[in-house]
Amino acid sequence: MDLSFIFEHKLILSISAAVLSILYGAFLAYQVLKQPKGDTKMNEIADAISEGASAYMKRQYSVVAVIGVVIFAILYFALGTYSALGFAAGAILSAVAGVAGMAVAVRSNIRTAQAAKTGLPSAFSLAFKGGAVTGLLVAGLALLSVAGFYWVLEQYAHGDLAPLIALGFGGSLISVFARLGGGIFTKSADVGTDMVGKIEKGIPEDDPRNPGVIADLVGDNVGDDAGMAADLFETYVITAVAAMILGNLLFPNNTSILYFPMLIGAVSIVASIVGTWFVKISGNSIMKGLYQGLIVALLVSVGGFWLLTNYVFQTGLGIPSLNLFYCLLIGLGVTIGMVVITEYFTSKKFSPVKTIANASSTGHGTNVIAGLAVSMKATFAPILLIAGAILASYTLAGLYGVAAAAMSMLSLAGIIVAIDAFGPITDNAGGIAEMAGLDKKVRDVTDPLDAVGNTTKAVTKAYAIGSAGLAALVLFASYTQELAKGAKGITVAFSLSDPAVLVGLFIGGALPYLFAALAMEAVGKASVSIVDEVRRQFREIKGLMSGKVKPEYGKAVDIVTKAAIKEMILPAAITLIAPIAVGFLLGAQALGGLLIGSIVTGLFIAISMTTGGAAWDNTKKYIEEGNLGGKGSFAHQAAVTGDTVGDPYKDTAGPAINPMIKVLNIVALLIASFLM
Amino acid sequence: MDLSFIFEHKLILSISAAVLSILYGAFLAYQVLKQPKGDTKMNEIADAISEGASAYMKRQYSVVAVIGVVIFAILYFALGTYSALGFAAGAILSAVAGVAGMAVAVRSNIRTAQAAKTGLPSAFSLAFKGGAVTGLLVAGLALLSVAGFYWVLEQYAHGDLAPLIALGFGGSLISVFARLGGGIFTKSADVGTDMVGKIEKGIPEDDPRNPGVIADLVGDNVGDDAGMAADLFETYVITAVAAMILGNLLFPNNTSILYFPMLIGAVSIVASIVGTWFVKISGNSIMKGLYQGLIVALLVSVGGFWLLTNYVFQTGLGIPSLNLFYCLLIGLGVTIGMVVITEYFTSKKFSPVKTIANASSTGHGTNVIAGLAVSMKATFAPILLIAGAILASYTLAGLYGVAAAAMSMLSLAGIIVAIDAFGPITDNAGGIAEMAGLDKKVRDVTDPLDAVGNTTKAVTKAYAIGSAGLAALVLFASYTQELAKGAKGITVAFSLSDPAVLVGLFIGGALPYLFAALAMEAVGKASVSIVDEVRRQFREIKGLMSGKVKPEYGKAVDIVTKAAIKEMILPAAITLIAPIAVGFLLGAQALGGLLIGSIVTGLFIAISMTTGGAAWDNTKKYIEEGNLGGKGSFAHQAAVTGDTVGDPYKDTAGPAINPMIKVLNIVALLIASFLM
Repeated sequence: MDLSFIFEHKLILSISAAVLSILYGAFLAYQVLKQPKGDTKMNEIADAISEGASAYMKRQYSVVAVIGVVIFAILYFALGTYSALGFAAGAILSAVAGVAGMAVAVRSNIRTAQAAKTGLPSAFSLAFKGGAVTGLLVAGLALLSVAGFYWVLEQYAHGDLAPLIALGFGGSLISVFARLGGGIFTKSADVGTDMVGKIEKGIPEDDPRNPGVIADLVGDNVGDDAGMAADLFETYVITAVAAMILGNLLFPNNTSILYFPMLIGAVSIVASIVGTWFVKISGNSIMKGLYQGLIVALLVSVGGFWLLTNYVFQTGLGIPSLNLFYCLLIGLGVTIGMVVITEYFTSKKFSPVKTIANASSTGHGTNVIAGLAVSMKATFAPILLIAGAILASYTLAGLYGVAAAAMSMLSLAGIIVAIDAFGPITDNAGGIAEMAGLDKKVRDVTDPLDAVGNTTKAVTKAYAIGSAGLAALVLFASYTQELAKGAKGITVAFSLSDPAVLVGLFIGGALPYLFAALAMEAVGKASVSIVDEVRRQFREIKGLMSGKVKPEYGKAVDIVTKAAIKEMILPAAITLIAPIAVGFLLGAQALGGLLIGSIVTGLFIAISMTTGGAAWDNTKKYIEEGNLGGKGSFAHQAAVTGDTVGDPYKDTAGPAINPMIKVLNIVALLIASFLM
Repeated sequence: MDLSFIFEHKLILSISAAVLSILYGAFLAYQVLKQPKGDTKMNEIADAISEGASAYMKRQYSVVAVIGVVIFAILYFALGTYSALGFAAGAILSAVAGVAGMAVAVRSNIRTAQAAKTGLPSAFSLAFKGGAVTGLLVAGLALLSVAGFYWVLEQYAHGDLAPLIALGFGGSLISVFARLGGGIFTKSADVGTDMVGKIEKGIPEDDPRNPGVIADLVGDNVGDDAGMAADLFETYVITAVAAMILGNLLFPNNTSILYFPMLIGAVSIVASIVGTWFVKISGNSIMKGLYQGLIVALLVSVGGFWLLTNYVFQTGLGIPSLNLFYCLLIGLGVTIGMVVITEYFTSKKFSPVKTIANASSTGHGTNVIAGLAVSMKATFAPILLIAGAILASYTLAGLYGVAAAAMSMLSLAGIIVAIDAFGPITDNAGGIAEMAGLDKKVRDVTDPLDAVGNTTKAVTKAYAIGSAGLAALVLFASYTQELAKGAKGITVAFSLSDPAVLVGLFIGGALPYLFAALAMEAVGKASVSIVDEVRRQFREIKGLMSGKVKPEYGKAVDIVTKAAIKEMILPAAITLIAPIAVGFLLGAQALGGLLIGSIVTGLFIAISMTTGGAAWDNTKKYIEEGNLGGKGSFAHQAAVTGDTVGDPYKDTAGPAINPMIKVLNIVALLIASFLM
């Protein structure tokens, strides 16, 4: 079988696959939007959520735009027109992926609540379609930005690759802000609203009398949906770009190497679309229904990768086709491994969550100790998995093998995000049902969907951070190759015996700690501001508690918006400035150390926080199911404490580490040519 | 001035200084022991503590002895007689330092309680003398073991240095067990006793009716005194040995280089003894009185180092004397820096503790979030300090400069330990006063002493881990030099672009996470066993709550002893096996990566845990002083939760990381010659 003629059309193929993904996403959006929207009361609430989310996004992107314009100007003067354009394209498309996906999500929530009246299967199908829009947009826009911008460079810039780095930088920058701002928003709204509502006033979650409740629901969208979408978009783009740059540096005379990552993306986009068709509730297991789709996507990818490596992409790199195929399988294997490990550490079925639950029965302190122990322990298996993947893919195909594995892993972002993004939709649907006073059976449909969403959220984060580990290493490899090119023959060894490298390692290791500490603090500070506002409304608005007067939802949204945006600036600024300062003050060696240092501690912090946080969350749910005394018991109170601690862990600090590491690496790559 | 004739007697001088330290310690012990011991009831309690502590130590060392004999045999066959002997000497002297110091401490506590009847100054003076014994023994025995064993090697083994590594290994191994076993004992006894006594039964701390109270007091001695002593002993020995080995590898033709680290130790031992004379309570500030002694010791060391580098040790290393002197100053500077930073993050006077206190007023969860944020943030300044010290000392005098700075830092162990070890003595004195029903004014004397002890404990841990960071790097440098020697000219570069090094970095980074997780879990499990026992006694022993019948203290001690010893095995075993497995399976490059990986994440985990834990502890004390509602308030309950979380952080997992890193490094050094 000779399919290599396909390769003639490699760029058209990649762009077509990307466009297909976007079109199919639009088609799903159309299907969702034509569903019934429920009664007036439901619409009022849904509109409030939608308005709040838009207001937040507008504010966030007005601030980010100012920073973006400054960086655009700097890039224009330092690196030229195409780098500046690439940066703008990456930033804008990253924002579009998040905003468009979220726009569909905030319209799916009410329709899901309405569908839930007729039972689980229809609600599930609708929420999944709504979430799949985000997934398809993320993968489609990411591939489109890479392939499209590369086409521009080929046509107008003699195939110069440097502007691609700026494209990735644009995506990463947006992603840091989206993850931080969205994460601070969602968790401070959540913690602050619950603290006054549940604890001080004793009213249930999502009670319409609570002035913070809309802010809480808005948070699910801006953090868990838009933030996550921006994050995966940038990871995808960065991985593809890094693989292209590294391929070009390693095989400078082989132009076809540039198309390989894009073709991997094209294969997996088709696989992801096929995968979504197989997501169907089977029996009563929602999780099984989701995994069904993932497994189909994996299998289609395996087939596609086989054809790609054996019959389409015949390159003469000196790497046997079969070895390249195995590298792609390793990427898929790491994805499966991360899913299984995360499931083990966060699911109510296994011993980690049960251990935390048992520790809850002796108090708040022992719950937290057990949770922290689980969170630290949860890093070991993923790290071994990533380490094994690096060793195996390197053995098979050298540095390029690692890049191929990373790209293969990331290429599945479409289906992975789809599986995740239905979570916030069902979470919101439950909130709307509660606030609109719908029948209890509606919540009985949305609650289990929400619970599954919690696990898939943890899975996506583990996937994102695992792939980020590989992607960051590929970026680091590009950085060293770039320096070597600049040094013109002088070997650039980052030796651990070099004190500059060691010092860089230490400083790099310190950055995720500082960043995470600031993010945790930010949630603390922003929560206080919303607690004050919610308390004020309960105090000043007469008839609020009796339900006669509606609270001023908008004010609470406004306050948490301002707080989140204010708090996201400092950690993001540190991320931008640190590599530049270390690079120019301590040199290229120290900067190389910094990159690896940040990857090492960053991976551990991110995995421990996202997994630990989800384990705490599910411990609370496990006890609420009636175990160890159930709701209201002493163990339950302790579990609520653990969940509160886990919130900024898993939804603010932990996931923001992922784009943070990438920004450090990509800034280093941008300034590499100035350092030699 | 020509003092170089002194150098003729360098070994005699070093050994004399070591013996002086031990003799002066014995003299202080004699002074303490001749003080009055109080009434029969006090003696009963003190005897129970002393017996419990001895029983624990016996059990711990019977288990460790079995492991020690196995390793002794392995070393004997693999590396020869002198390595086996060195290992035995290091292990035995490390144990002696801990046991002898603790023996004096458990006899000082009752005398301190008695002296407290006459006021603060006499109680302080006695407790400080009791603690200084441990400090002087640690420094004296450590220097004696290095200088004495080197003398043996010079006389009988043609000056072979390899057995010195085994000496360090012996010390490190004991230290891992002492820190882990002691740390698990002290915190599980503490947490378990409080959980039933304070929370379930509502009786005060140290109430004689609580069956776990003696175990709690025993814990202070076996963990905070004996464990800490073994830890500092090994850090001292390892640093001296690493400096000697590295000096020999870097300057193979200069034999006098071997004596330099010992002479640094000799200078600082004299400085430490002089320092102890200046520890006097001034006004009402206990802290100031302690720092007075430390400052004098620092100044005397500076003078001594000046004489040493300029007039005594003239080596012809190609390093100007002044540069070497500056390196020694850098070591002292890091000590001062670590003290100041730790004080800032843990003292009730500054914003970190106040921030956690404010967060406590909104609940358990926010207290923990704020505490975790502080613990992570607290790593940044120490890491920059250590990184700066590495860069500066390397610039001044190359790799050997880093070794000199590390040795200078460690040489002050005598005075640092003295300042710390009075803490558990006053803690115990307070317990005895409470249990024997002494006048309230006795506790009014011991309580503030205990509070200061908490801060100095945190300072010592920061000092130990900071110096461990430097020492481990020196060990790593020795490892690379050793490999280079074995490779006979082939350069051994640990390049970050080498996937084996990267994989090693990841695995090495994972080890402290796994180790700390297991240590935290161990405290959880051991606490449950003591909770069960205390509950059983309250249930089964009639007349216990009314105070008519005495509880069975010994049984509680016995149970927590068994639990602690059982739980310390697995983490210690991982530490021993991991470097051997990685070295032989993945090679010398991966093992090098592992060492650095463990130093990077280990430093962050250890600093964040020890500092964060102390900050939580002092937050509780700050609130108990009447702030934010004082004792019994909602904020106080939250602060108690934070303190419970901080306990295993600061007294079990955090400090045990220090010897753990060193064992990894020294095992690597031991097997280095088999890897090439």
